[in-house]
Amino acid sequence: MNTLQVDLGNRSYPIYIGENLIQNHELFAPHVRGHLSIIVTNPTIAALYADQVEKSLKNIGQQVMRVIIPDGEAHKNWATLQLIFNGLMEAGADRKSTIIALGGGVIGDMAGFAAASFMRGIAFIQIPTTLLSQVDSSVGGKTGINHPLGKNMIGAFHQPVAVIADLLTLTTLPQKELAAGLAEVVKHGAIADDVFLSWIESHIADLNACDLSAMEHAVLRSCEIKSAVVAADEKEIGIRAHLNFGHTFGHAIEAGMGYGDWLHGEAVGCGMVIASELSKELGYITAQEVRRLTQIIAELHLPITPPVWSVQKYLDLMSHDKKAEQGSIKYVVLEKLGQASVQKVPDKTIGAVLQRFGAT
Amino acid sequence: MNTLQVDLGNRSYPIYIGENLIQNHELFAPHVRGHLSIIVTNPTIAALYADQVEKSLKNIGQQVMRVIIPDGEAHKNWATLQLIFNGLMEAGADRKSTIIALGGGVIGDMAGFAAASFMRGIAFIQIPTTLLSQVDSSVGGKTGINHPLGKNMIGAFHQPVAVIADLLTLTTLPQKELAAGLAEVVKHGAIADDVFLSWIESHIADLNACDLSAMEHAVLRSCEIKSAVVAADEKEIGIRAHLNFGHTFGHAIEAGMGYGDWLHGEAVGCGMVIASELSKELGYITAQEVRRLTQIIAELHLPITPPVWSVQKYLDLMSHDKKAEQGSIKYVVLEKLGQASVQKVPDKTIGAVLQRFGAT
Repeated sequence: MNTLQVDLGNRSYPIYIGENLIQNHELFAPHVRGHLSIIVTNPTIAALYADQVEKSLKNIGQQVMRVIIPDGEAHKNWATLQLIFNGLMEAGADRKSTIIALGGGVIGDMAGFAAASFMRGIAFIQIPTTLLSQVDSSVGGKTGINHPLGKNMIGAFHQPVAVIADLLTLTTLPQKELAAGLAEVVKHGAIADDVFLSWIESHIADLNACDLSAMEHAVLRSCEIKSAVVAADEKEIGIRAHLNFGHTFGHAIEAGMGYGDWLHGEAVGCGMVIASELSKELGYITAQEVRRLTQIIAELHLPITPPVWSVQKYLDLMSHDKKAEQGSIKYVVLEKLGQASVQKVPDKTIGAVLQRFGAT
Repeated sequence: MNTLQVDLGNRSYPIYIGENLIQNHELFAPHVRGHLSIIVTNPTIAALYADQVEKSLKNIGQQVMRVIIPDGEAHKNWATLQLIFNGLMEAGADRKSTIIALGGGVIGDMAGFAAASFMRGIAFIQIPTTLLSQVDSSVGGKTGINHPLGKNMIGAFHQPVAVIADLLTLTTLPQKELAAGLAEVVKHGAIADDVFLSWIESHIADLNACDLSAMEHAVLRSCEIKSAVVAADEKEIGIRAHLNFGHTFGHAIEAGMGYGDWLHGEAVGCGMVIASELSKELGYITAQEVRRLTQIIAELHLPITPPVWSVQKYLDLMSHDKKAEQGSIKYVVLEKLGQASVQKVPDKTIGAVLQRFGAT
């Protein structure tokens, strides 16, 4: 087992990465304060792992309740959040109760936001069961729900008290979701570590096969990179924006398709292809480097061809993105492989790049 | 004009207290960052003050939008919060936009929670237009909405960037709401400053008549007391709980009556009478001091007789209070006039005290 400390002053917390962790009640013990734990999960994950988590919690004397919420991004809204609040109220939860977010990114975001706002903030432990959530949402404390007009528009920064990333949960993951998680792994290499990017390139077969020792390295290095960025800029005033590489285009794809059609990671994968092309257009990386990155993304079974929409549709969708400020959209580009920066780019340039992908 | 600095490190902010402040655009100028301000208010307050506030904001180059939400505690829920989010999205608000909370406690709580959670946190300026909100919710950063099963159950700690307490807005306040605000003024004297309590006692006629120089002292001293407490304990781990004097019983009365029947301040006034009796029962203050405090509360036209319910109903209602932990209810009591503490009290003792007020 690896333990990585996310360094955020009095909100610091450990990420445990390894196999068979959810059975290990000693990992839970230091992180619960009260007598009541509420497991928030969805029906699929509940059937696979809730009993094991519940057993670990009971082993350390916790009273355990479950709140089962519907699966998927389409349910990442107030109505579902309300189910969690209702469960907390009915269970008699108080300020010392602990929420256990057992599931992927949607569960983590919603259970985390419930923890952030229930009684103005209670503790939560995150048990990410997808690759995407292990390498991405388990670090950084971003929680929230979608607004009908925009993704993750309503939320809070709320750090978990611990993250338990059990690699064994990845073995039950559909191939499509594994690929979606690998998109964020590639992103971490692309923006911050070209050595890691090369490692990914040379382990594509292992990664596609969900080889657990490859996964361990991918998860650990991703969490290291992301936690270094988040520690430097918790509230996303500066460098944290680099983590949005591929996300401005990706969010536009997700929003335009209706959330839930493309997986988030798939949209990010494709978004990185466009953002790489933009980086080339701005004179940073070479056409060969764009091809190399595109090749990696394609071999990880991620889409590299965006929906054929008008440039204006893309621009409209992106202007609603949270990263937009006063109508001007900022883009994360690669200055070179392993190094990102944020740039304001004229709409005309964006249009020219999008047209290369078939936009009208 | 008085300026009181609430000292919370990098979340510190000024409270401006005086007459004719909302016309003074120079008070707004240092506290807006972007180009867009969104005034959140209700129809009554909009008719009285929104034009003046809008003019001040336009004077400093702001684009101004209004979101008008329905009035009253009964609307302090998700549906109304959603109106604010919709308004923000439609106005094209971004992370640098500023929310202007123009109104009483309900507006402040909701606009503040909207600011806390929109894009995970944007700035807000509070313009409290009731005495209650000027002396209470303008300090401390508590924001939130009600859950059907409990008041203020969902929310965030989110500090405003500035508070503009214009005493002239108090002159349009109904007598009943003035009294409700005075309940919290009395509370500040009772828990922290017996000299202030004596000042209140000798200025009851001025306070009831809304004499603005008396109001200025009442607001300023209340904000000073509250901000000292909040600065010492922002997240309510310790001494901040003293501010809940009268509130455990008060919340039970509000919840039991259905929110909106008794004003919050009225319930707190009556709650302080019960809490004073409890303080006497525990051997702290004398019967004469209880009578003195009760007399002050009565002369400020606040109720001193709680609803006649069973003791069990009171206990059930209080066990849902946020301050309850693992079933054990803590009470704020007066060790003497001007000094509070928090005590766990057996249900039997609470029952005996409530029975003196007619509980069955």
